Amino acid sequence: MAEEKDIVAGAPGLPSRGSAGTKGITASKEKDFSEWYTQVCTEQGAKLVDIRYNVQGFVVHRPWAFRILRKIYELYEKEVEADGHEPYLFPTVIPEENLLKEKEHAGFSPDVFWVTMAGDEKLEAPLALRPTGETQIYPIYALWIRSYNDLPLKGYQSRITVFRNEKTTRPFLRGREFMFFETHDVFRTHEDAMAQISRDLGMMKRVAWDRLALPFIFFQRPQFDKFKGADNTYAADTLMPDGKRNQMSSTHDLGQRFANAYGLKYDDEDGTEKQPHQTCFGPGIYRHMAALIGIHGDDTGLILPSAVCPLHAVIVPITFSKKPEDAKAVEEFCKKAEKEAAKEFAVKFDSSATTPGFKFNQWEMLGVPVRLEIGPREAKEGKVTIALRAPKEKRTVAFADLNKEIRDSLEKLDSELKARAEKYFANNTKDAKTLKELKDIIEKHRGFVRVPFCSTGMDGEKCADILKTETLGAVVCGTGFENPEKPKKGDKCVVCGKDARHIVYTAKTY
Amino acid sequence: MAEEKDIVAGAPGLPSRGSAGTKGITASKEKDFSEWYTQVCTEQGAKLVDIRYNVQGFVVHRPWAFRILRKIYELYEKEVEADGHEPYLFPTVIPEENLLKEKEHAGFSPDVFWVTMAGDEKLEAPLALRPTGETQIYPIYALWIRSYNDLPLKGYQSRITVFRNEKTTRPFLRGREFMFFETHDVFRTHEDAMAQISRDLGMMKRVAWDRLALPFIFFQRPQFDKFKGADNTYAADTLMPDGKRNQMSSTHDLGQRFANAYGLKYDDEDGTEKQPHQTCFGPGIYRHMAALIGIHGDDTGLILPSAVCPLHAVIVPITFSKKPEDAKAVEEFCKKAEKEAAKEFAVKFDSSATTPGFKFNQWEMLGVPVRLEIGPREAKEGKVTIALRAPKEKRTVAFADLNKEIRDSLEKLDSELKARAEKYFANNTKDAKTLKELKDIIEKHRGFVRVPFCSTGMDGEKCADILKTETLGAVVCGTGFENPEKPKKGDKCVVCGKDARHIVYTAKTY
Repeated sequence: MAEEKDIVAGAPGLPSRGSAGTKGITASKEKDFSEWYTQVCTEQGAKLVDIRYNVQGFVVHRPWAFRILRKIYELYEKEVEADGHEPYLFPTVIPEENLLKEKEHAGFSPDVFWVTMAGDEKLEAPLALRPTGETQIYPIYALWIRSYNDLPLKGYQSRITVFRNEKTTRPFLRGREFMFFETHDVFRTHEDAMAQISRDLGMMKRVAWDRLALPFIFFQRPQFDKFKGADNTYAADTLMPDGKRNQMSSTHDLGQRFANAYGLKYDDEDGTEKQPHQTCFGPGIYRHMAALIGIHGDDTGLILPSAVCPLHAVIVPITFSKKPEDAKAVEEFCKKAEKEAAKEFAVKFDSSATTPGFKFNQWEMLGVPVRLEIGPREAKEGKVTIALRAPKEKRTVAFADLNKEIRDSLEKLDSELKARAEKYFANNTKDAKTLKELKDIIEKHRGFVRVPFCSTGMDGEKCADILKTETLGAVVCGTGFENPEKPKKGDKCVVCGKDARHIVYTAKTY
Repeated sequence: MAEEKDIVAGAPGLPSRGSAGTKGITASKEKDFSEWYTQVCTEQGAKLVDIRYNVQGFVVHRPWAFRILRKIYELYEKEVEADGHEPYLFPTVIPEENLLKEKEHAGFSPDVFWVTMAGDEKLEAPLALRPTGETQIYPIYALWIRSYNDLPLKGYQSRITVFRNEKTTRPFLRGREFMFFETHDVFRTHEDAMAQISRDLGMMKRVAWDRLALPFIFFQRPQFDKFKGADNTYAADTLMPDGKRNQMSSTHDLGQRFANAYGLKYDDEDGTEKQPHQTCFGPGIYRHMAALIGIHGDDTGLILPSAVCPLHAVIVPITFSKKPEDAKAVEEFCKKAEKEAAKEFAVKFDSSATTPGFKFNQWEMLGVPVRLEIGPREAKEGKVTIALRAPKEKRTVAFADLNKEIRDSLEKLDSELKARAEKYFANNTKDAKTLKELKDIIEKHRGFVRVPFCSTGMDGEKCADILKTETLGAVVCGTGFENPEKPKKGDKCVVCGKDARHIVYTAKTY
């Protein structure tokens, strides 16, 4: 079974293993983020997606990307299950009547794909490819809920895709089919529902920040930018290197709107029939991926936090020596190191027939945190040279300390990514007191700008529209959910000049 | 957060937790398997699916079922990755042109669902909802493969669904959307491809038999019943309690047919361009589930092997005593037992406000292998009563031995399921030498019947058709892949009377 040797678990994403490899990234992340991002995602870079699939806006998720995305999924699955959510799976198609019942969803319908035929026959009624789960899940919840004993009902579906006919698409930022994750919760009271929203925020902190090193602000969206079927929308926004906000999750306080539309009710302890309160939470798996690529990557390629990198370490043999006994000693020592590291880490010994330099480039492109270099000297002295992807540094350590050193290296890399991301986030969050100041800042760096604003209620929409026009695209992201900034006395709305009731964050957006 | 207490990971699939519960199964598996199966799957039984979703043939997979299905997926994911397959994800939709290119796939087209609209606009070309992956994956493989260094290329997609407009549907046996798993492998030589088919069989043995206790025969299908795009089809068939065969997997020797249609080629070591050989393997996740339900279940409900049951053990407090100190002692001891058992097993302390009898019924219905009963006496004496789902037995053990006893119990249950299934399988595999004998056996018991047969080549199709008509539905399953039975001298085909070249298995089928 010689043909199996080359592919080991974790090897991945290198379809042209023996052949040419990637050209490497030529664009600068700093100077041309858009081009850099495309290069990293495609053939030239880390081969995350294949955009040559012959349906526009639909991509192939290649192994390396799939493994990262799967790890993001796993982190959220673990969180929501620990929080009492049960997994289930609903059909991919939704009958038209379900969409029509909840009129707020009419907002989706221009983007909905419709199944109308089976074989040569027309279906009696068209079926929508699921744009999101509410309209399919809640009618069934109405059947499952009878009494207060059935509440809370907390469920989720994961590893599904949803479909929207977006005009423009970009890998992991906007796709016609994209990876989805959604919880759907039903509570007796609004207080219970709000407690869930805080727990949803807790999950975002533990996954997006603690594990993925992606900083964000959890906003309460203005009324004019909430999900139309919700009483309130909360969203976690991060900042991409081009200064645009990237919405990484949303969580909705649905109130009793859907309960009303789909007939959810329960018999309460006091014997009366009541309408429950609902929330739903959707960490954007794709958007997390886009943030990982964009925020942490550099001109060499991806840099991945240890929690989601398919490999923690790769072992590269350095055998320029012409003596066959050197090569053999190196190979043996590499295998020994692989065995040792595998006790604790996802590790791969790259024994392919390419040069060390080629291997260095490949694994740096893919964002593997740690590289172990082993040459004749290391093999002889029982040492290993450890190279870290970020911060770039190298040191030689004793074999006996190998796993401790890898552990320390991963911690160092994760800390470095957090420090870099936090610094970028802080440096690109500014304040403006006038529309002119705001325009200047947005024009130069984009990023978040905090401004005094008249109202996040529906009466603020007009000012938000003007703000967007004047800044060529900045939107009002909302107010902080935790510790929202308060306007100072005398602060005036940057648009209408009325007394400011809020300090809101503005930013350009994807 | 009092509302979280009731739902713990693994609690699941009991939507009416506090309410009425299930009615219980009234049908007899022995006497009316079809009705029994429906009851187990739906409201009346283990609530595996909700068939009230308003698109015919599309079901909701409820938490308990979803957790079992997920475990089946995980077992195969682990196997194929250990065998060198890389995970990826392709789009749900396939352009019409891809289906047309491989004409053999035209066989699917009457069953294909077509997306034709986005919003109000007609698409330029219709998109098929994926009926299976070949026609979408191989054109991309053609882009990924350049030289012999790229081979073998072994990939898979898991946790996806596929779509076929089946006329009739049954939970986990036939659905319009159903859970799918597929590997797609490309090799230099046919020898390499055949070695993969043996490894695919190995995976079936390790998962379906070793872990799920589902016996099967791995057949080489007759030429007239192979997948039309393949040179040869191999399939693992098990027997359901109604005597019908249930195809649990298929693995195809695709030869060079698809390579030819989609332009897969590689530069070989000798500098010449060659066409590779392909295989694909699909364990039927749904079909495994149907086999678990049907083969292991009894008139009380599911019986699940330890490898896939979402819970290994449930703890039920027995508190008929009126003394509050007894109830408290029992509760504390239950929690202690839960904590201990959780070190090694998936366990739940069922503290809900229902009677022990109600709880016994619920958890037996769901097929949980082990029940731990703890009453005042157990709490006082530091003992636990262990009840096993199969074989039905109860014993009281010391707390100190708890985990060892659970471990032994799970082993005993798994062995019992294997013994029962093997016995049923053996008892329902018979031999016939004439068409009359065959008809008699099929009429009485169905199951597998081995018969002498003229040919498994295309020239045998006519006899197979006659056999099917005469037996009111039995098909020729094929010959055993391992150690195929040989006809004895003088054995004649049960249909045409010519010299038999094979002993084939026949059975009615789903």
